[in-house]
Amino acid sequence: MRKNYNFSAGPAILPEEVLLTAQAEMLDWNGTGCSIMELGHRGPEFQAIAAQAEADLRELMSIPDHYRVFFLPGGATAQFAMVPINLLAQNNKADYLVTGLWSKKAQTEAARYGCIHVAAEAFEHEGRLSIPDPSQWSLTKDAAYVHYTPNETIAGLEFQSVPQTGGVPLVADMTSMILSRPVNVNDYGLIYAGAQKNLGQAGITIVIIRDDLIQEPLARTPTLYHYQLHREHQSFYNTPPTYSWYITGLVLAWMKKQGGVAALYEANLRKAKLVYDVLDQFPEFYLPRVERQYRSIMNVTFNLQNADLTEAFFAAAKERGLIHLQGHRVSGGIRASMYNAFPEEGALALATMMTEFAHEYAQSTREARKVAK
Amino acid sequence: MRKNYNFSAGPAILPEEVLLTAQAEMLDWNGTGCSIMELGHRGPEFQAIAAQAEADLRELMSIPDHYRVFFLPGGATAQFAMVPINLLAQNNKADYLVTGLWSKKAQTEAARYGCIHVAAEAFEHEGRLSIPDPSQWSLTKDAAYVHYTPNETIAGLEFQSVPQTGGVPLVADMTSMILSRPVNVNDYGLIYAGAQKNLGQAGITIVIIRDDLIQEPLARTPTLYHYQLHREHQSFYNTPPTYSWYITGLVLAWMKKQGGVAALYEANLRKAKLVYDVLDQFPEFYLPRVERQYRSIMNVTFNLQNADLTEAFFAAAKERGLIHLQGHRVSGGIRASMYNAFPEEGALALATMMTEFAHEYAQSTREARKVAK
Repeated sequence: MRKNYNFSAGPAILPEEVLLTAQAEMLDWNGTGCSIMELGHRGPEFQAIAAQAEADLRELMSIPDHYRVFFLPGGATAQFAMVPINLLAQNNKADYLVTGLWSKKAQTEAARYGCIHVAAEAFEHEGRLSIPDPSQWSLTKDAAYVHYTPNETIAGLEFQSVPQTGGVPLVADMTSMILSRPVNVNDYGLIYAGAQKNLGQAGITIVIIRDDLIQEPLARTPTLYHYQLHREHQSFYNTPPTYSWYITGLVLAWMKKQGGVAALYEANLRKAKLVYDVLDQFPEFYLPRVERQYRSIMNVTFNLQNADLTEAFFAAAKERGLIHLQGHRVSGGIRASMYNAFPEEGALALATMMTEFAHEYAQSTREARKVAK
Repeated sequence: MRKNYNFSAGPAILPEEVLLTAQAEMLDWNGTGCSIMELGHRGPEFQAIAAQAEADLRELMSIPDHYRVFFLPGGATAQFAMVPINLLAQNNKADYLVTGLWSKKAQTEAARYGCIHVAAEAFEHEGRLSIPDPSQWSLTKDAAYVHYTPNETIAGLEFQSVPQTGGVPLVADMTSMILSRPVNVNDYGLIYAGAQKNLGQAGITIVIIRDDLIQEPLARTPTLYHYQLHREHQSFYNTPPTYSWYITGLVLAWMKKQGGVAALYEANLRKAKLVYDVLDQFPEFYLPRVERQYRSIMNVTFNLQNADLTEAFFAAAKERGLIHLQGHRVSGGIRASMYNAFPEEGALALATMMTEFAHEYAQSTREARKVAK
């Protein structure tokens, strides 16, 4: 049994079973007498691991055959550049939905390569973050693609439906929600996701791209950033991050054993509900940061009405083994990240602690308010 | 005790002690109750690991203060592009010494960004690879830099002295020989090395760059490929490959315990000598692929005079637990890679096996020659 519940936003908690397997196989993978990190990437041992990981991902997400899957280094940040480098050579216009720091970073990087239009921006409404109604978006009819970030990890802002783009290919940075809920890959032209939240350890990124979108990239851009090259070499142009790929494979196998995406989604809903219910139960004590309809099921964010209690909150949480609840350095506040690998008991433990903390401090909060008035 | 000797050229053998530590700490790093791959990259735990790794590298290589050290994803292949992107903005001319597949790849990638001149090329002399005498090189006086690959892993061709460039900054891809022998960092403008040979697992690359060479990069190139950005953020602009960085840290700590670079170099010389001595002892049986003065101490390459015996050689080796001796897929033949972590007993075991194999098959080889005549 693990001794605490790790709410880190990423790199994040991994299934205990995955870590135990990695531990057991550290010095001897499958009778080879070698660690998987000591084996050549082109040898039959690692090739089998790589192929199995792709097959499991395809099965879990029902990825159609006309989509390619790449395992690449560089994190989602590398994709912020790779997407425009590869998709803007024929038509240099793209739309971006900017709903937080990550989509903003993606848009800023893309603007180095083409005419980037912000079709919609998140806004604050009565202290809560929200996304404009799709009827208000200014989509460009002949854009090469529309980019969005289904879940913004920092704010905890999540789209609950797929943006309609009128046939323009949709590109999604799914880093913080991939495999957390059912997704129809056919709705997307390109999906990418850094592994360090739902897919394993930092250092590897998955790209799922519709075959016809892989075209000649922009000139004078690094070869390693060309999807064409990765299609040709099946992610083996150079040495891939083999150990990260192996860990992702273990995570994918674990997901299948949990019952796949549908089962994980149900569990994620239950976990998020446990915490959001406490926020709703104590509106005078907790301040959710996001409009109800865009609440993330991966990252629950909130502040305390009495911000002076924030450190006491972290201390009370830590006493019960509830760790890494600090919000992102740019936003502050409290954030409970509960990815697929996060156990339901941990969500319950947090909800219980939050309820008790609210009861304990409700009076001091009321008093503080009176003083403020 | 490990059950075999792994001669893989990379990803390659790691010190058993490093793997045992990684194994022991897999589920609980330093009492945190978390695996290091589950901890945020900006938290105090990982920051301490990152800083210690840099400090140990600086100590091992005596890196002067006016050099920056980066830990980056993407392998040496990413550096093939990053070097010209960052060093060719002011002056777009560079010289490359092309002595094998890796320096050729570096040169080809650089040619996407500037005027690249091949100042010297390796050549074959009486069946053995060699490097032209420096007096024959056509260096460009006002080049932005000279790039070379001190050790070519595939051919096993290694420079035994530092190229003299008349003040032009020297850039070296040290992937397959970093920390294997003493190097004076002051001789270089920039050193880079993928980790998967002497520094850990695939997925992280070290860059050591003289501060004044970090300048405005070429326009319209990915932000992640800008050294300026990595200097500003100390390799933490985005989530770095934390677990790979941690493993590199363990390897560096292990190197210090071995007595540092001087001691490792002595051991590497002994290991290489054991195998080269057998090649020299049986010139009618073994065919070294490289001119004596450029023999690599990391990758010993050779063919059998009777190539028909190659599979029998691998089989005899495998029987004694000597594995992954196959040459690179483009060159074939036999390659014994013996990086820092490779134990001396393994080199002795190979030398013994090679001696016995030569005795056993000497007669059949002589007979095969007679038939050929």
